[in-house]
Amino acid sequence: MSESYPQVFQERPEVPDVVVSRLPQYVRTLSQLLSEGVQIANSQQLGEKLQITPAQIRKDLSYFGRFGKQGRGYRVDHLLEELKQILGLNVTWNVAVVGVGRLGRAILNYPGFTPDGFQLVAALDDNPSVVGQQVGGLTVLPVSHLADVVARYQVSIAIVAVPIAYTQQVVDRVVECGIQAILNYAPIMPQVPEGVNVRSIDPVLSLQSMTYYLANGVSPE
Amino acid sequence: MSESYPQVFQERPEVPDVVVSRLPQYVRTLSQLLSEGVQIANSQQLGEKLQITPAQIRKDLSYFGRFGKQGRGYRVDHLLEELKQILGLNVTWNVAVVGVGRLGRAILNYPGFTPDGFQLVAALDDNPSVVGQQVGGLTVLPVSHLADVVARYQVSIAIVAVPIAYTQQVVDRVVECGIQAILNYAPIMPQVPEGVNVRSIDPVLSLQSMTYYLANGVSPE
Repeated sequence: MSESYPQVFQERPEVPDVVVSRLPQYVRTLSQLLSEGVQIANSQQLGEKLQITPAQIRKDLSYFGRFGKQGRGYRVDHLLEELKQILGLNVTWNVAVVGVGRLGRAILNYPGFTPDGFQLVAALDDNPSVVGQQVGGLTVLPVSHLADVVARYQVSIAIVAVPIAYTQQVVDRVVECGIQAILNYAPIMPQVPEGVNVRSIDPVLSLQSMTYYLANGVSPE
Repeated sequence: MSESYPQVFQERPEVPDVVVSRLPQYVRTLSQLLSEGVQIANSQQLGEKLQITPAQIRKDLSYFGRFGKQGRGYRVDHLLEELKQILGLNVTWNVAVVGVGRLGRAILNYPGFTPDGFQLVAALDDNPSVVGQQVGGLTVLPVSHLADVVARYQVSIAIVAVPIAYTQQVVDRVVECGIQAILNYAPIMPQVPEGVNVRSIDPVLSLQSMTYYLANGVSPE
């Protein structure tokens, strides 16, 4: 995909990952504003919606060029399209789900992926009693089919929803099949080679960062 | 809880939320090192485990005082205990789960909360066919019982796992009952009054921040 954005890339060699991680929230908020008929939004208004300071918003966007005119706010449709292109959200990404337990089933039945450009194209599990079942419109395949599935459907992303004890070996398998983006649901941080991106969804980490505020009687910045 | 840390607080009035959000990962990594018998770790070693630069680690920890001796690394047990106390993880927090659909069931059966100090003490849902069921060892109660449950069990945190259409109203209800920390599973950002902390678990946002790297052919910083 990198061929599509060569000129953009010369201008922004290094964007901090925390900034990249915030951009999808910007996209979501801008989509919402657009659907409400809002055409121009300033960083104050975006900040209220996103619960981020206006200064932070201006700084984040500055990595990608000048989107707004001084004092006039951002054109919502323009900023939205630019951010979608920057994030690669103008195409559909094929996703394989590995692990079809209770959590995997919830994921496979989650309706939120498709409208946002993520197509769940395969469900895989090594439990013989699960293989062959229909879940979320897909027939569960054994994990040994992963390489085939990745090649056949041009899978770019894997969602790994297996127990802790199996997470590292499944992640290793996924990486061997050439996948470079992994969404991991287990509460461990798998080791991956450089160039492979893992995001972990872990409710405990989210809870633990909230107890800071509860314990100390302060509010988030 | 704020009474416990008065002297600490005078020294660190404002810690950026991104730093607070990283601390639980530090705690997890330090626990792992301790269980492996590691007594001293430098920021290089921690950085490799956490996939964060050593400079970032030193900067993050600097908000909370000097934990390490120059050039000698951190005492793992000491740093772990300090961070746990800072995060309020030296006590157990009672949690109510609102929404007992497929996702709520996965949450209620998730074994990872208890060892980390979060006790799921109530499950609530407004679907009459779900109320009264046993899920994860709890009897599902109607949402109208929420205020009672919060008072009786001293619930500090709510996990909200309801469909998008109901999320805002359920969050409003949770806030009315005095809860100030909410973990939200729906792919929207609910509006809450100042002082209430919401973390959203949203797989799409995580996926969308990974496509940035796929689309642009670069690796995270």
